[in-house]
Parts: sequence; C-alpha cells; structure tokens
Amino acid sequence: MADAITPRDEDYSQWYLDVVKAAKLADYSPVRGCMIIRPNGYGLWENMQDALDKMFKDTGHENAYFPLFIPQSFLAKEAEHVEGFAKECAVVTHSRLTVSEEDGELMADPESELEENLIVRPTSETIIWDTYSKWIQSWRDLPILINQWANVVRWEMRTRLFLRTMEFLWQEGHTAHATREEAVEEARQMLEVYTSFAEDFMALPVIQGTKTPSERFAGAVETYCIEALMQDGKALQAGTSHFLGQNFAKAFDCTFQNKNNELEYVWATSWGVSTRLIGALIMTHSDDKGLVMPPRLAPTQVVIVPIFRNDDEKVQVLEVADRIRRELDTRDVAVKLDARESQRPGWKFAEYEAQGVPVRLAIGPRDVKNENAEIARRDTGEKSIVPQAGLPDRIVALLDEIQQSLYDQAFSFREEHTTEVSDYDEFKEVLKEEGGFIIAPWDGTDESEAQIKEETKATIRCIPFDQDDVEGTDLVSGKPATHRVIFAKAY
Amino acid sequence: MADAITPRDEDYSQWYLDVVKAAKLADYSPVRGCMIIRPNGYGLWENMQDALDKMFKDTGHENAYFPLFIPQSFLAKEAEHVEGFAKECAVVTHSRLTVSEEDGELMADPESELEENLIVRPTSETIIWDTYSKWIQSWRDLPILINQWANVVRWEMRTRLFLRTMEFLWQEGHTAHATREEAVEEARQMLEVYTSFAEDFMALPVIQGTKTPSERFAGAVETYCIEALMQDGKALQAGTSHFLGQNFAKAFDCTFQNKNNELEYVWATSWGVSTRLIGALIMTHSDDKGLVMPPRLAPTQVVIVPIFRNDDEKVQVLEVADRIRRELDTRDVAVKLDARESQRPGWKFAEYEAQGVPVRLAIGPRDVKNENAEIARRDTGEKSIVPQAGLPDRIVALLDEIQQSLYDQAFSFREEHTTEVSDYDEFKEVLKEEGGFIIAPWDGTDESEAQIKEETKATIRCIPFDQDDVEGTDLVSGKPATHRVIFAKAY
Repeated sequence: MADAITPRDEDYSQWYLDVVKAAKLADYSPVRGCMIIRPNGYGLWENMQDALDKMFKDTGHENAYFPLFIPQSFLAKEAEHVEGFAKECAVVTHSRLTVSEEDGELMADPESELEENLIVRPTSETIIWDTYSKWIQSWRDLPILINQWANVVRWEMRTRLFLRTMEFLWQEGHTAHATREEAVEEARQMLEVYTSFAEDFMALPVIQGTKTPSERFAGAVETYCIEALMQDGKALQAGTSHFLGQNFAKAFDCTFQNKNNELEYVWATSWGVSTRLIGALIMTHSDDKGLVMPPRLAPTQVVIVPIFRNDDEKVQVLEVADRIRRELDTRDVAVKLDARESQRPGWKFAEYEAQGVPVRLAIGPRDVKNENAEIARRDTGEKSIVPQAGLPDRIVALLDEIQQSLYDQAFSFREEHTTEVSDYDEFKEVLKEEGGFIIAPWDGTDESEAQIKEETKATIRCIPFDQDDVEGTDLVSGKPATHRVIFAKAY
Repeated sequence: MADAITPRDEDYSQWYLDVVKAAKLADYSPVRGCMIIRPNGYGLWENMQDALDKMFKDTGHENAYFPLFIPQSFLAKEAEHVEGFAKECAVVTHSRLTVSEEDGELMADPESELEENLIVRPTSETIIWDTYSKWIQSWRDLPILINQWANVVRWEMRTRLFLRTMEFLWQEGHTAHATREEAVEEARQMLEVYTSFAEDFMALPVIQGTKTPSERFAGAVETYCIEALMQDGKALQAGTSHFLGQNFAKAFDCTFQNKNNELEYVWATSWGVSTRLIGALIMTHSDDKGLVMPPRLAPTQVVIVPIFRNDDEKVQVLEVADRIRRELDTRDVAVKLDARESQRPGWKFAEYEAQGVPVRLAIGPRDVKNENAEIARRDTGEKSIVPQAGLPDRIVALLDEIQQSLYDQAFSFREEHTTEVSDYDEFKEVLKEEGGFIIAPWDGTDESEAQIKEETKATIRCIPFDQDDVEGTDLVSGKPATHRVIFAKAY
C-alpha cells in the first residue's frame, strides 16, 4: 500500500516529500544533497527529454558532449562567472586512493595530488567557449547550434528533491553567432520553445519575461525566463535563456573573420532546463492523494487492473483486459496491464493513484458479461461504467481532455492568485495573506529591489515582455516606475 | 576540405586519430584524457543508445539515475572492488574555491574540506547496492531490473579517443534476483542483447565467452563478454555482462524474505557497454579515406549534393534534389540535402566521404534533363547513374545491402585472421606475423596465462561457450588442456 501522504493544508513541504516518496519518484542518497531518481521519476524525465530534444532538433540544434571536469583556471576567466560559481562547487584534487599508514583507512593518496584542481561542471560555458575558440575561424563556421544533456553539480547547502539538489540532470544549449541580433533572436526563440513545452506538455502556464540585473545568470548580458506559480503561492523559475553578448568570447579569445575580412568576437547564448521541472510538475497538479501526471508526459497513461476471484474468472477477465491493452497499444497509448497476483486490486488502485497514472480501467467478471469497463480519472476522481465498444477512441479523447483540464485549472489558479498592487502596505498585506504573483510598479533600481527582498523575502521574478505605458510609483522609493514587474516568494 | 588521413599501413594509430578528426567525431579537451564528443560522434552514440535502450526495455528493464558521487567508504566495502578501482579515481575533497592570500590565485578553500572524500563513480555497484538494500525486503520486491545511462570516470594514464578516456559515457544495468539461476540467466540474456546489437546494428561480428578469473570484473563471480577483432589484428572487448553472485548483497547487507519466510542474500548482475563501441566501429569498417558508418547507425544515411553553375540550373537542380529528399524522408531514410553555396561540390564530396555517410547522391543539370541521379557507395566507392524513378526503393535496398556487406566483410576478415595452434612456437610465430585471434589449448591456471602474457603481451580474450571435448596440452605448462581459449593482443 502506498505510504500515507500529509495533507497540503497541514504541511505543504511535507506533503511534497510524501508525494515524491509515495509516487516512487526519487529518494535521497547517502551522499548529502544527491538524489536517486527512481524509474517512475526517470520515466517522466525521459518523456520530457524526448519532447524537448525533438523541439531542439526541429529548430536546427545538434547534441554533443563536453567534459565533466573544468580546469579551475577556466572558471576564473569570466569575472562574474567565477563569482557566481566558485563558492559552491565540487573540487577534485587527487587521482588515487591509498591506505593510510596511520589508521589503515582509505585516504586520498598525497602523491596523486593534481597540478591543477578540477571542478565538476556547475555549467559548461567555460569549457565550451574554450572549445569554440578552436572550432571557429570564419563566418562560414557560424552559427554553431549545440545542446548537451548532462549532469551538473552545485554545492547547495539546503536541498530538496528535484527542486534543489547538489547534482541534477539538465540540458544546456550553447550557441555561437556572427551578430548580436542573431544571438538575441536565438535566446528569445529558445524561450518560446520552453514556453511551448511547459504549456503544451507539462500543462504549466508560465509568464515570460526578463530577469533584473541582480537575478541574471553569472556572465549574461540578459537573462530571459519563464516563471510559474505553484499551489502554495510561491513562484518557480521553470527555464532560462541567456543572451551572453561577447563576454565568454572575450574571456576565451574566440574571434571570427567576417565577410569583410575583419576579426570580430563571436556572440553567444546559453539556455537550460533541468530535473527541477519535475518538482514544478508535482507542485502544480498533484493533490492529497498523491501525484497527478499530465497525460502527455505520463510514462503510463492508462493502467488496466483486472479483478477476479477464481481461475475461470481470471481467464475471462484477462482475455478482455489483454485485448483492450492491445487496442490501446496500437493507438499509441502508453498502457500497462497489471495482472500480478501478488497484490490485490485495492492495493493497485491506491498505488496507481499515488503514482498519478491519468486513467485507470478496472475490468471484472460482470464487466466481461456486460461488455463494459470501469474508467476512473485520476485528476477528478470521476468513475463511470462504459461499453468496451469504442473504448480506445474514448480513452484517446479523455487523455486530451485531462491534459487540457489540468492546464485550465492551473491557469485559473494563477489568475486567482495574481494581484496588482500600487503601494507597499497593500503589497505586504497581499504577500502575507495570499502570496501568489504580485504585479507592482518598480523604479528599475537595485536598491528598491534589494530593500523589498530584505524586508519581505519577495523577489522580482521577471519583468514581463511588452510593457506598455508604465504608471505608478516604486513601492519603496516613491519614484516614478519604469517597469511593471512580478514579485513573489520563490523556490 | 577534410584533413589528410595517414594510410593504415603506414601508421595505424595515427590513421585512427586522423579518421576521428577528419570525420569530426571527437576532440581531446583541455583536461588531460577527457574527450569532447562532437555532433557527428554524438549522433552515432544517440543511435546506439536508441537501439540498445529499446532492447533493454523489450527485455523488461527500466531506466533510473543514481548519484555521480560515491562515498569513499562505500568503495571499501567489497574487497576486490576497491582493489580494482581505488588506484585510478577522481577524488573530490573540497566544496568551495577561494582566493589564495599568498598568490591571489584560486585554490580549494581549506575550510571547505569534506568530512569524507567523494569518489566520482568509476561504476555504480556500490551506491546501487546500498540503495537496493533499502528497497528490497521481500521476494515480492524482486526482480529489480534497472539500467542507467551515465558518465563515469577512471583515471587512465594512457588515453585514446573513444577507446580509453578518463571520462566516458556508458550504460550500466544492475539487476537483483531471488535465485542464482535467475541472475545467471539475466547475465547471459544481456550478453545476447549485446551480441545482437553488435552484429545487427554495428555490423560487428563478435565471439561470446567467459573471462578467465584474472580478467574478471572486480567483484564478479563470472564475467561474460563479447570480443571483436579490429583491422590491425588486435582484439577489442565490446561488452561485458557480470554475474556478481551475492558479493555486493553481502557487502551492503541486502537480504530478502523468500516465500518460505527465510532471509536470503539477493543475487546480482551488472552489464555495460560504452562509447568505446564507437572506437570499435571506426576500427572495423573505416578505410584510408575516412570513416565508414554502417547504415543502421548512421545519423545521416544519404547525403544529396546538388551541382549547378548558375541560377537557372540552381532552381532546376534544387527542385529535383528537394523532391528526392522528401521522398526519402517519407521512407524513414535519414537524408540530408546540403545546398550550401559557401562550399563547392568537390569539397562536400570529400567531407562526406571522410564522415562516412553511406550513400551520396549527386544531381546536376544533366541529371535533371535525363531524369537521373548519380549514386556513390561509401563502402566500395562504386558510382552509378540511375533513373530517378524508383530511387527511394533502390536506396532503401542499397542501405540494407551495405549493412550486410560490411558485416560479411568484417566476418571474412575475422575468419582469415583466426588461427588454431597447438604449440607455443607456432603461437608466437602467428602472433608476430599475423596477429588476430589465436585459438589454443589452456590448462586453466593463472600461471600459464600470466607467463604467456608476460612473454608475448597476448591475453586470453575469452573462453568461448559450448566447449566440446578439449584436446591438446597447455602451451607453456605442457599439462592437459581444460579449455580451448582465444588469445590476442588487445585494446
């Protein structure tokens, strides 16, 4: 039987961990802050990867693979970059273990100390731009449109499964262009790709915008992002795409000869999403019974649970169940028939509910006789008895309906939890009572942003695109606002 | 233009590196022994992954992900395992960089020294069996059939792109079973999967067998392997599957309650193949002009090169070229139309030849007029003018023919370079003059094996399965042979 799940209104953090555990998505590992992604969690990630990878390839990108280790000196080459990452990284200093003469325990062999420390990549701009400087000579070598699927490590002190772990899985795109315009266009295009993925696959409505200077990626000229709202009223950054200008090209001396035979520095972008998205998915759709998966990403979309009490019934029920399984399979529905006799149907119902399988079909002897099946929707809990005839069509339509319904529900939730305020008292009141996204005027200064963060823990999540005439005054400085921005407490 | 390639008979090692470079498969990185896998190389790996992953899932396995870092104490728990891996591993000792007060350079922050060193995984048995010990209580929890796609690090002193690199990509399967028989069956089943993959996808004939005790995986009871013969007469281990007995279950106290309510240790297997296979593929099929890819793994199976001298010709030629591209695309042929005008047709011919694209189509104004196209086969170099009508059928059949032909050629080569010997003088003579696989009688002792290795550098690659009556005497001890084994010098 699935483990008990703490209700959300009792303890949201514990609910989250309980869902991860009950749905068998992940476990903490013996290494502090590292995570074991279990088959159910990894199946979700594989489906995310498939969808994203296809979108990357459709927009002209190729995959490649760069080394896990980055020479310490590389990190130092871009000033802001080292500032951003040196304080939380795994440092490799030795290449061998030996047995200590003192206590007989294993230890790093002092004789194997490296000449230069290696850093386990927290992100790969440095090693990639070192490489690009060798690959690029002429405008003919541009653009380079490369993506990498990889693990990265950031030494986080406070970790949380999927949301913030020391090691996580992600993709990082790194592109090289001949002009600023082309690079900006690429960075914006990839933000659109992330938006489509979040909305169409994850059923996760997002707001697009630009990060403020203080929230930019270390080394970026501009960071574009998509921001989503979780059920507890906190924001989650779901993806970022950076216009890096010529910062990394300059740090790694990456130039090209343009069509006029002049040497120019190359323009860069990078963009990434990670296993963190699984956390976003959980916190957007799930409920007190466990995980709810959007059908388009569910490794199992439909589970069939056969019900029988003796061998005669078993033969009859399994024949029908297997026929339905095959019919759904030919319609490209990810279907699983759980005919195990080591577990009872009630156990299986609870198990697949906790695991978030979108549709459950139950088939018993009476259903065989009446040529029916029982359909249960995971998202609403609705059950109905339907004829076996036409079942595949009905299921295919139902999966689409659930996908849309999850999106609509998340969208409504966000609308209901987005408040526009014009003064600081109102801001603090809304933040305290309701949370959510708070739209407010901002004067564009680091000082105001920092003061609000200091006093309320809310940060500017993004400056939404396409700002028309901005009215009002900054919440703390009282100066005329230059932007309308979105504040929230964030993961 | 593609870089010049050293002929094989002049310098085989240099030829290999030249092919890797000319085909744009990989580069060395600034980190000694680490490799950058370029899009052409990664595309091959993606196709290998796709094929293998499907075979793993068809045999009931699921993917998961375990941490990159392994606590130092875990390595020590299995005696042979630590012996095998402690001498070549990347040791993480600190979690932060700081600026040295002495010289102003970055250094590992002494205050961030870890309580316990972390090892970058050289393989994951230890962390996985620690986890399994928490997941497994009862026979109902078995079997566990998990695979992981991951990067691993082994601190090799002498590295070679793809064949032996400090970091490499691989898959590692780790399964847990209730009985010895089931575990042995699993290990043997996965060797069959590897064999099918090597022969059907890589066009690489392999010999299946068991490793001698001295060549076993560190911690295994039995190591099964597939061995292939390269063009230079050296052997390459193309995949291994290990029956681990209860060694890791005992090291990590992993027990289960069987159906009779008794506690037993769990039985284990592990199995893996790596990016090393790309090296095997190169050394099996390629020639002095560059890479030759088997069609079933080629990211681009057909390249279309249009030829024109003016805009009129361009319009006509591209119309036909694009029609053919679309026709091939609908037949699921991986086709690329290279219409770039920044490079000349002759440059493209050389480029795709070096990159090993199996079939090249050239279309010029005369072909448009005569409704023809020129087909060139990469493997044989044959060219022919064929009608555009029926071209897709012809190409699909040709790709199959090339796949089979590459296999047949590699198979013949192996047959021609496999020699059966009965005494040590003959053995040394064959090893020196021809290399290849040498089948010889062996008395089953470590001593004979070690002496032959010491004196000739040849090792026992495997003990082939299904030995009938063994005749003859051991090459060095003169004692009656217990096995007929395959010797070779190896990568």
